[in-house]
Amino acid sequence: MPDSWVNSAERTGSDLHLELSRTGSRRAALIAALRDAVRSGRLAPGTRLPPYRSLAADLGLARNTVADAYAELVAEGWLTARQGSGTRVAERAAPPRPARVPVRVPVRTPGQGQGPGQGPARPAHDLRQGVPDASSFPRTAWLASARRALAAAPHSVFGPGDPQGRIELRTALADYLARARGVHTDPERIVICSGFAHALRLLFGGGVLGGPLAVESYGLGFHRSLLDAAGVRTLPLALDDHGARTEELAGLGRRVQAALLTPAHQFPTGGPLRPERRAAVVNWARAHGALVLEDDYDGEFRYDREPLGAVQGLDPDHVLHLGSVSKSLSPAVRLGWMVLPERLVDPVLAAKGEREAWAGVLDQLTLADFIESGSYDRHVRRMRRRYRDRRDRLVTTLAARAPHIEVTGIAAGLHAVLRLPPGTERSTVKAATWQGVALDGLAVFRHPDATMPAPDGLVVGYAAAPDHAYGAAVDALCRALPPR
Amino acid sequence: MPDSWVNSAERTGSDLHLELSRTGSRRAALIAALRDAVRSGRLAPGTRLPPYRSLAADLGLARNTVADAYAELVAEGWLTARQGSGTRVAERAAPPRPARVPVRVPVRTPGQGQGPGQGPARPAHDLRQGVPDASSFPRTAWLASARRALAAAPHSVFGPGDPQGRIELRTALADYLARARGVHTDPERIVICSGFAHALRLLFGGGVLGGPLAVESYGLGFHRSLLDAAGVRTLPLALDDHGARTEELAGLGRRVQAALLTPAHQFPTGGPLRPERRAAVVNWARAHGALVLEDDYDGEFRYDREPLGAVQGLDPDHVLHLGSVSKSLSPAVRLGWMVLPERLVDPVLAAKGEREAWAGVLDQLTLADFIESGSYDRHVRRMRRRYRDRRDRLVTTLAARAPHIEVTGIAAGLHAVLRLPPGTERSTVKAATWQGVALDGLAVFRHPDATMPAPDGLVVGYAAAPDHAYGAAVDALCRALPPR
Repeated sequence: MPDSWVNSAERTGSDLHLELSRTGSRRAALIAALRDAVRSGRLAPGTRLPPYRSLAADLGLARNTVADAYAELVAEGWLTARQGSGTRVAERAAPPRPARVPVRVPVRTPGQGQGPGQGPARPAHDLRQGVPDASSFPRTAWLASARRALAAAPHSVFGPGDPQGRIELRTALADYLARARGVHTDPERIVICSGFAHALRLLFGGGVLGGPLAVESYGLGFHRSLLDAAGVRTLPLALDDHGARTEELAGLGRRVQAALLTPAHQFPTGGPLRPERRAAVVNWARAHGALVLEDDYDGEFRYDREPLGAVQGLDPDHVLHLGSVSKSLSPAVRLGWMVLPERLVDPVLAAKGEREAWAGVLDQLTLADFIESGSYDRHVRRMRRRYRDRRDRLVTTLAARAPHIEVTGIAAGLHAVLRLPPGTERSTVKAATWQGVALDGLAVFRHPDATMPAPDGLVVGYAAAPDHAYGAAVDALCRALPPR
Repeated sequence: MPDSWVNSAERTGSDLHLELSRTGSRRAALIAALRDAVRSGRLAPGTRLPPYRSLAADLGLARNTVADAYAELVAEGWLTARQGSGTRVAERAAPPRPARVPVRVPVRTPGQGQGPGQGPARPAHDLRQGVPDASSFPRTAWLASARRALAAAPHSVFGPGDPQGRIELRTALADYLARARGVHTDPERIVICSGFAHALRLLFGGGVLGGPLAVESYGLGFHRSLLDAAGVRTLPLALDDHGARTEELAGLGRRVQAALLTPAHQFPTGGPLRPERRAAVVNWARAHGALVLEDDYDGEFRYDREPLGAVQGLDPDHVLHLGSVSKSLSPAVRLGWMVLPERLVDPVLAAKGEREAWAGVLDQLTLADFIESGSYDRHVRRMRRRYRDRRDRLVTTLAARAPHIEVTGIAAGLHAVLRLPPGTERSTVKAATWQGVALDGLAVFRHPDATMPAPDGLVVGYAAAPDHAYGAAVDALCRALPPR
């Protein structure tokens, strides 16, 4: 063993073994082994490496292989080579090894996000709102659509994208939304995004719209935080059984630029916006040059009658219609859409283009085929039946076991609201937690500035639990409810 | 025809025809026809509609069908029903018809975005940088990965997502990046995003990192705009043939939090960062508690030698490694990654979770399979050969037809830089435009505050044009070059 090599081993305070991996090229294996030795500190800064020929003889390698490896590591900055002083480990403290990071368990605050968390913290019974049945994703039909879409796509699909979204999807959506939701639009007014929150960010974070914004007194805290972060003040409208009290809009003054509503199915309290109010909010928007933002988050799921048409159909120039597949298909498919008044198309595209935040193009093409082939309608019908059955089971079970608890907001959607006796919400949520049931009380959805009465209630999502676990979840819920 | 009906037709000033679509239910067809009549103004506000039985008789429909349709339109706010006054069109001005919107042709400013635009404005010869060959997307292998990924996915995949990204993809990337790029990491330090720009937004727009930020004097204007928008001041480092002059970092003072570099292949000038500078920038980061942001945008494509390992391997705690599939696969697959020092993982996840901007989960699973099945390596090797051939053709043609023009930055990447005689860049870009060639001069990539000399040059992307069109594009380029 040559002197310099022995010396280096002594300087590092330990015998240096280079164990070369048996797979891959010898050169690559030697590079990897030397990198590891430097990184771990076994080869300290300044250590002189053996000459090519010595190390080659030691390891049974060709000299060129070793010379190449040294050159590579010099180029990468691990080693230095200077005329007369040989090849040395670069002069810098050995980097610390990366610390071991414990496996992270995502924790989700109820009422703030999309629904249940994952991992070991998952509760026994999942009755949180906002999540469709993950076990029902139409894998086969989706893959068939992906295959057709990939086969039909022109090459340009794989080039740079159009911030507005693929024309195939915008065309399919224009047809679908007209037919199923009474939305009045054409593909040129639709902008694809990756979900409702993304749409809010583009509109308010991208400088297209400003505040203040009228909102409903109950809604997703996540959306409020997002608007807060964009510097948009939100002013809560009171709710009653007929949705938001649109007559309050007039009292908010002319500063209010827009009203964000859930007309088809108020989230989370559950009523549809009363017809006169649908007209009133559109009239308000016209009179004030304002906008109605229609969050049509679960418009497809209406059980006891046909779905209510979208408010957008009443006035496409004053209503901005927002939807996504998060409830109808899966939040894993990051696709949503904005149906815009014409004057907003260019500003939204400018905001979107600058942020380069468009949705995956293959998913866009797949969804276009999924809609046009009828798979989307079939899936929605199938899920509508399934969710209606779930809802019926909830209502029936509660009627038998807790007839004093009123169940509301059940005509549509993926959740119901159980009205509780005054002052019992917090203790009931706690009792539910003890029963292993994850769900939210109404309080977490309340706007901090809301002045309307604060009813006690539970928001019960009936879609998230898998079929086989649903009965047990409802049983556990019943055990947590306050006695008559 | 009943009186009221005649009256309403008179009031709207035209005869009202309800043409019911022959497809779908009679009820749905009637609703659609009435909506259209109101929307178009043919049924004016206040107009009284005929009683159910009259319209039913008129149209040959069951009375219940008409009653249902009226009720639906009342619920939607199109009509009002009041005891004693019958059913009327709601009292509000008829909404204007949506104006016809001309088909939009996306226009992209050279040097600002991802490369060539689409549509009729497309130039005859596409030599813009930054775009891989769209005709080479591995459709069959990608679909095979999608099929395997969908079949293997647990149900929970279709539930709410983890902002960090799917563990399957993070695991595949940790292995791949270690093997192919010398990156030292584990899956818990990787965060999936939808591309490089998304990563920048999360880091700087999400409050994780602040400015000022040292950058290279030449780079993508799009990234600078994005940082500007986030309020981050950028300070340009001079470049020479060995990459960024890292010795200038010391002179920028302690305020500088991070340096954003393209060490493997300076964008766009094309040199790799010299070995001493790789070590120097890491030492600077350590000494100042700062970060190196390593933009490894085309690290896979190195032609005349093995790829340079990532700077991140020198010090995983002071280098944040950023990559994406935009160049290696397609910008249509919106997937990128950040390899983070451990202390930044939680802050980045917090920023990402709040913004709900994660990438499509099915694409994530597909890419994981694509990498693990070896398809990614095969694709990269295939494209490396193809791009090397393109580069060789460019060099050979220029050597024959414009030997006075030096071609630089050719050891790697998807573009080369042609050095031009001083003062000729602008006229050469114009001449290229006349020849139908789309490309950029160096000037559009220059930082506005750069003080280094401004060489004249053309940035020639050799990947974007399809194979059959490439020769003609290079010919046209030669015709645009200044004479000796």
